[in-house]
Amino acid sequence: MTKPENSANQMWGGRFASGPDAIMTAINASIGFDQRLYAQDIAGSRAHAAMLAATGILTSTDAEAIGEGLLTVLSEIEAGNFTFSTALEDIHMNVESRLKDLIGAPAGRLHTARSRNDQVAVDFRLWVRDQCDAAISGLTALMRAFLAQAEAGTDWVMPGFTHLQTAQPVTWGHHMLAYVEMLARDKSRFEDARKRMNECPLGAAALAGTSFPIDRHMTAKALGFDRPTANSLDSVSDRDFALEFLSASSICAMHLSRFAEELVIWSSAQFRFVKLSDKWTTGSSIMPQKKNPDAAELLRAKLGRILGATVALFTIMKGLALTYSKDMQEDKEQVFDAADTLMLALAAMTGMVGDMTANREVLATSAASGFSTATDLADWLVRALNLPFREAHHVTGTLVALAESKGCDLPDLSITEMKSVHDGITQEVYSVLGVENSVRSRTSYGGTSPDCVAKQIARWKSLLA
Amino acid sequence: MTKPENSANQMWGGRFASGPDAIMTAINASIGFDQRLYAQDIAGSRAHAAMLAATGILTSTDAEAIGEGLLTVLSEIEAGNFTFSTALEDIHMNVESRLKDLIGAPAGRLHTARSRNDQVAVDFRLWVRDQCDAAISGLTALMRAFLAQAEAGTDWVMPGFTHLQTAQPVTWGHHMLAYVEMLARDKSRFEDARKRMNECPLGAAALAGTSFPIDRHMTAKALGFDRPTANSLDSVSDRDFALEFLSASSICAMHLSRFAEELVIWSSAQFRFVKLSDKWTTGSSIMPQKKNPDAAELLRAKLGRILGATVALFTIMKGLALTYSKDMQEDKEQVFDAADTLMLALAAMTGMVGDMTANREVLATSAASGFSTATDLADWLVRALNLPFREAHHVTGTLVALAESKGCDLPDLSITEMKSVHDGITQEVYSVLGVENSVRSRTSYGGTSPDCVAKQIARWKSLLA
Amino acid sequence: MTKPENSANQMWGGRFASGPDAIMTAINASIGFDQRLYAQDIAGSRAHAAMLAATGILTSTDAEAIGEGLLTVLSEIEAGNFTFSTALEDIHMNVESRLKDLIGAPAGRLHTARSRNDQVAVDFRLWVRDQCDAAISGLTALMRAFLAQAEAGTDWVMPGFTHLQTAQPVTWGHHMLAYVEMLARDKSRFEDARKRMNECPLGAAALAGTSFPIDRHMTAKALGFDRPTANSLDSVSDRDFALEFLSASSICAMHLSRFAEELVIWSSAQFRFVKLSDKWTTGSSIMPQKKNPDAAELLRAKLGRILGATVALFTIMKGLALTYSKDMQEDKEQVFDAADTLMLALAAMTGMVGDMTANREVLATSAASGFSTATDLADWLVRALNLPFREAHHVTGTLVALAESKGCDLPDLSITEMKSVHDGITQEVYSVLGVENSVRSRTSYGGTSPDCVAKQIARWKSLLA
Amino acid sequence: MTKPENSANQMWGGRFASGPDAIMTAINASIGFDQRLYAQDIAGSRAHAAMLAATGILTSTDAEAIGEGLLTVLSEIEAGNFTFSTALEDIHMNVESRLKDLIGAPAGRLHTARSRNDQVAVDFRLWVRDQCDAAISGLTALMRAFLAQAEAGTDWVMPGFTHLQTAQPVTWGHHMLAYVEMLARDKSRFEDARKRMNECPLGAAALAGTSFPIDRHMTAKALGFDRPTANSLDSVSDRDFALEFLSASSICAMHLSRFAEELVIWSSAQFRFVKLSDKWTTGSSIMPQKKNPDAAELLRAKLGRILGATVALFTIMKGLALTYSKDMQEDKEQVFDAADTLMLALAAMTGMVGDMTANREVLATSAASGFSTATDLADWLVRALNLPFREAHHVTGTLVALAESKGCDLPDLSITEMKSVHDGITQEVYSVLGVENSVRSRTSYGGTSPDCVAKQIARWKSLLA
Repeated sequence: MTKPENSANQMWGGRFASGPDAIMTAINASIGFDQRLYAQDIAGSRAHAAMLAATGILTSTDAEAIGEGLLTVLSEIEAGNFTFSTALEDIHMNVESRLKDLIGAPAGRLHTARSRNDQVAVDFRLWVRDQCDAAISGLTALMRAFLAQAEAGTDWVMPGFTHLQTAQPVTWGHHMLAYVEMLARDKSRFEDARKRMNECPLGAAALAGTSFPIDRHMTAKALGFDRPTANSLDSVSDRDFALEFLSASSICAMHLSRFAEELVIWSSAQFRFVKLSDKWTTGSSIMPQKKNPDAAELLRAKLGRILGATVALFTIMKGLALTYSKDMQEDKEQVFDAADTLMLALAAMTGMVGDMTANREVLATSAASGFSTATDLADWLVRALNLPFREAHHVTGTLVALAESKGCDLPDLSITEMKSVHDGITQEVYSVLGVENSVRSRTSYGGTSPDCVAKQIARWKSLLA
Repeated sequence: MTKPENSANQMWGGRFASGPDAIMTAINASIGFDQRLYAQDIAGSRAHAAMLAATGILTSTDAEAIGEGLLTVLSEIEAGNFTFSTALEDIHMNVESRLKDLIGAPAGRLHTARSRNDQVAVDFRLWVRDQCDAAISGLTALMRAFLAQAEAGTDWVMPGFTHLQTAQPVTWGHHMLAYVEMLARDKSRFEDARKRMNECPLGAAALAGTSFPIDRHMTAKALGFDRPTANSLDSVSDRDFALEFLSASSICAMHLSRFAEELVIWSSAQFRFVKLSDKWTTGSSIMPQKKNPDAAELLRAKLGRILGATVALFTIMKGLALTYSKDMQEDKEQVFDAADTLMLALAAMTGMVGDMTANREVLATSAASGFSTATDLADWLVRALNLPFREAHHVTGTLVALAESKGCDLPDLSITEMKSVHDGITQEVYSVLGVENSVRSRTSYGGTSPDCVAKQIARWKSLLA
Repeated sequence: MTKPENSANQMWGGRFASGPDAIMTAINASIGFDQRLYAQDIAGSRAHAAMLAATGILTSTDAEAIGEGLLTVLSEIEAGNFTFSTALEDIHMNVESRLKDLIGAPAGRLHTARSRNDQVAVDFRLWVRDQCDAAISGLTALMRAFLAQAEAGTDWVMPGFTHLQTAQPVTWGHHMLAYVEMLARDKSRFEDARKRMNECPLGAAALAGTSFPIDRHMTAKALGFDRPTANSLDSVSDRDFALEFLSASSICAMHLSRFAEELVIWSSAQFRFVKLSDKWTTGSSIMPQKKNPDAAELLRAKLGRILGATVALFTIMKGLALTYSKDMQEDKEQVFDAADTLMLALAAMTGMVGDMTANREVLATSAASGFSTATDLADWLVRALNLPFREAHHVTGTLVALAESKGCDLPDLSITEMKSVHDGITQEVYSVLGVENSVRSRTSYGGTSPDCVAKQIARWKSLLA
Repeated sequence: MTKPENSANQMWGGRFASGPDAIMTAINASIGFDQRLYAQDIAGSRAHAAMLAATGILTSTDAEAIGEGLLTVLSEIEAGNFTFSTALEDIHMNVESRLKDLIGAPAGRLHTARSRNDQVAVDFRLWVRDQCDAAISGLTALMRAFLAQAEAGTDWVMPGFTHLQTAQPVTWGHHMLAYVEMLARDKSRFEDARKRMNECPLGAAALAGTSFPIDRHMTAKALGFDRPTANSLDSVSDRDFALEFLSASSICAMHLSRFAEELVIWSSAQFRFVKLSDKWTTGSSIMPQKKNPDAAELLRAKLGRILGATVALFTIMKGLALTYSKDMQEDKEQVFDAADTLMLALAAMTGMVGDMTANREVLATSAASGFSTATDLADWLVRALNLPFREAHHVTGTLVALAESKGCDLPDLSITEMKSVHDGITQEVYSVLGVENSVRSRTSYGGTSPDCVAKQIARWKSLLA
């Protein structure tokens, strides 16, 4: 935030040792943040100038001078040689002013048939569209990282949890693929959002359209849009594209928070399911075993940040009469921060997933504890002996109690002991006890058996190829 | 909220004059709200039973008894003859228990190869899918209402606002169509969400899939899903479909809040742009002119309610380790309330828009005030005299000042007065002054001219036919 | 939500098979939820009537009839013999209408010098004030439950975590008291909120005050308020008291979510730090070891619900022009649900904390692992040998590495081995190694030593006595 | 956000053309934002060093060197001569590292008996405490600005609105004072929050307290705290003070959004109630009458920003197991931005309110329209003729209808016409008709009569003196 610096004035109180002008500048000027739109602003202006020439509204000479001048401004900004001026308020005026320095009079013709209202609408939409692409690319990388983990441990057995209580054994590959599914939905949400926002507001002018014979289809095409927007009032007052981007980002950040939580729990001394690499943890100079999962914790927190931005923009947009109101200037910082946060989070998670090592033995031991195959036994009773589901549960409960009283696990019961509870039980029952057998048997579509998992891995490898 | 009723226990403090059992029941049982899923639950169970028979897991006789029994339960519930029991916790157990009363033993086989985890996942998904359809239908009705208003006043002139300050004249039809555009985006968001959620989690069982030879494609098809979900862990821990529904609902509610705000402002004594019908307002027994726009105010507020539900579910889902956790039971009440709110809001807005009457004269007078065609004059100077944009603005400013000093409007200045400011000005300039001329000239694609508006109306009529 | 039931009308689309009247009723009437304010409404009316009599605005006879009649209405409602009518819109009209049935004409004089605007303001404020009291009482009960746990295990050693990694040993009593501190802050927040809201809006009338010679100090006193509000416009448009209640509730719910998370993690098979009682968990019919911490999970989720209500009301109140707007009718359901949720959550947590059993052996073993007293060793080096902090850390790191290479813990190293790393080390060092010694040494104010904890327990016992 | 700069690595995908180290640095280092805590960090360290000397843990020489060295660091930072290093992660390490450069070995003793966990807790708490003071001061200034407006227009008549419909005449002074009341509540909330947070966490060390004989009361006193915190675990894991600050800020921002909305509506061409000064508006180069209320619109939006930060921190804190987790590092940027936003908003609103000019004539004319004194007439009928309230309303309605049919206002009806409706009406009735009479009559405590308003102004002037 820019802090005003001029002379003190009792009246303004608080921390502002400055007069109203400085305060108004501090609250009103957007150049402090909207300079991030420079590339989009220049691209939009170049497309606009080219169209003005093509439709005869501008001479080719002027349009060429403008086009070239804008490229110069672009290279100045990218080289860090551009001085942004708060007095010029925003990126649009900063660029146009510099253009005038460079090419003189023709610069004054660039703003023909447009307004800052449609200009900022197109700039911001282009920026958000780029972020959709960045999210899609970041998600793809993270899906690949999970897929690599799934492939490495397709058939490793681990506890499957409900309520953080061991429920049934599952496979590591299956657990990793669960996140691939979530991320794939995220990806398709960004793809849908991108498609929906891909209409060009340029040419809506201040709000009503223009009387110049502009060609909105031409600028739309030049900027990679599918078509121009169909209503000029809506064009300058719409921020749906930002809200949809934020909503999709929030869902994605929620997914990341879930795996981050798992990583924090899994890397505790009590779980020891995974070992995170040194790159993503911090340690203690005196406690060598301590590996603080800092990155995972930060990723868990990022949902808060992105959800906060989402709530902010919804609240800002609430109840705004059409068309453009200055309230909408508050949109950018929220989206900038959320997008930066998301892209960084995706990259960090990709790195962490790529580097982490599952502790295969601990996972297997953990999976086998707690009579985790009791369900398999019950299902076998239904399947093999045709017991009704509820009765099979009763028999299983009795057998588990028997094993518990003997301090052993289900597969350790003798066939005689088994038969003492239900005499229909046969040797075949042992084929479903034991965690390896259990996971192997879950062959329903989408189930945890290594075969099913391998099929899903193959599907995803081909989809992500 | 169910209130526990048994005997007091000092320890629990606060308002709960009851022991722990009552408190646990109050916090744990979901039948108080999930009974709304009865139709979905029964449809899911019927599809499951039919599949179990087709795959030989159940006999046809049992499956038939189950299918018939479930229809009986359904009709009992719909007739209001069903007693929901809190002791049976949720809709699944209530239905199954009643089924057992009705058909006896075979009821115990229905739960084969499934779990409450995938059962609730499929029930809730079916319910949310229905809400997407309801939203799409409600949005279509509202779009038609706006379209009818647009058609009635295609060329009525009204002030176009930025910052709630008159900026340029626009047409009533154009303003109404701005909302059609917003609502169309809403509709496509619900369509996308529906498509994405249209995968069937049934068969994921508790979390790992099952060893029974079930046919998940068959149940998916029977329930109108495009395919079964591909990962059983994800299937029981996923609530993306609810979050996406809530996000789309929030954006839609934001749009409604904007028009609601306009209605409140427009129906003030100071604006008098519209007259709302008595049906949607309340009055005062002694102040006949007072028409409180209650419905509009409530619709403005509804964004808060839906956004609140959205924040609630995001916060609930944050950082949940896989797979199912009881936290997720909190999803339903949020979505139920948001969906009810949205559907009611869409219906109310449709009614209000259908009944409202624009005050055409006030709109026209308001549009003509404040030199609202100054931009047209400036554009004419650029177009006809080839002045650079920034210079044209200077000339216009001088002419407006001249008119202001004479207490007249721009069209009232004589050609001599015009020429005294810039001698290139010709008689032709009068063709762009005046609000009717102004709106007629905004012919750029998506612009406010009656012709453009008429084209958009035609497009929408054909799309909504 | 009330669903309209009359005849279908194509126009309204969506789910509403009904005409506009039914929709308006559904969206406009508040009796469905504001009937919860009946006791407050009647108390307010009784105070108002008594004041009208005392100031001579009403005759004593009329006032008495009104007072008695209102008591009859109250007992009818409490006996469940009152039929609420949606046509009468809200609780105020329902009560007044019944009063008229009961006492005839004088009922028509009750509404003198007031309006529904100040009436609902006082009703709702009284209700929220009661909830502050309920929260304070619920918090006190929960603090006592934590205190009892702290007392039982004042000196039990457990791992102290940062980043869910064992950092240093702490005591069970100390950990329990951490929550007592949090809850004490919650309590003081509700106390502050109660004080701030304890001003009576009755007498503000519609918005401007009244020309009747009312005595607002009298009604304020009769209703237990500290004083009347000082500005009538503010009185009918203020909902700060609800927002402050919601904010305090959100902070409290956040605290509950933290302990709930600990309970979920602690009751996992991998941690086994606590055993929750059967009352607060659900099990599996076949997996006897499985105790799903349902109540804890639901409490973890409740923050979402309360935060959602908070966001809802903030969004609703955003940008409302003074004074009363119908948007504000949306305040009640949010606060009702949040208050119900909070009181239930406090009661459930009190029950769970009271019933839970710490697994003292597991805690102790866990505390001793991972060189958790390395910090104590480093501190001893600083204290006893006057090493600079950073150098002490280096020596400690070397000793830990030595112990690790030998597969033993720090206290198992011989003095010779110790001296090989730093020859200033003496036998005294063993007095700080070992978890019992470690916690005993943390005697700084507020530290984890059993002595410190005992002092804090004593302080809290006296405060809560 | 710091962007990583080193070499590309395919794996990380998305926008990060860099290896994991750079991503970890970008997500983990806090120096980019926590450098704002430099003054608090140095003050905390100085108090700590002085205490270490006083308790004999440090020599006076070392403590003095540290104290002096820290002052040098402080002046370097304030002079802009300090280079913050990302490799040193945070403000604590940056300061300590520079201290070591300056004073050598003794710097290594400063961190004795503390940890970064209690260090950041005290730094951040000091910072938030300062913001409470800044908010209180900013609120006081804004209250004075509203008070000045109230004093200038104590008896100016304006329409009092409910539902944005004219309800009854009120006074400008009364309306201005409504905001003084709201802001006074805001102020007392910040005062309460400040009191509650004013406990010193320093000395909690990493989480368990320390075995060094520190004096926590001494450091608490030195830093202006009322006392040390009572539980070391709570001390390092508590962020209540930040959440309470954010909640109070959200309520305050909501108040600002309401007046901002009024300013936007009031400065529309249709209302013309106020004229904002050029300092707080932007114009159009060609539309001289256009004064966009930019500052007001931005202030209306700021609630979104602050509420977003509030939601963010609640979500971040949800379900964090004790004690410190890295998630909590996300607290600062949210609070920094919310505090900056609030202070700027208060200053801007103070400026705007100070500069704005009420359009007294428009207000008066507007107040008189719409039979706005019908309520006064009804009240007179009750008071003077002893009609029951509901009957008085009926008579009034008939009189208003009569006036409406004659195209005149209520005071324009003759006594004969009055009597034709109810023959008890006397000449005295005219004393309550007319807006001046109306407002003069509203003399109930807190009412809108100029006398009442003057008393409240006097009260506030003395309170704010």
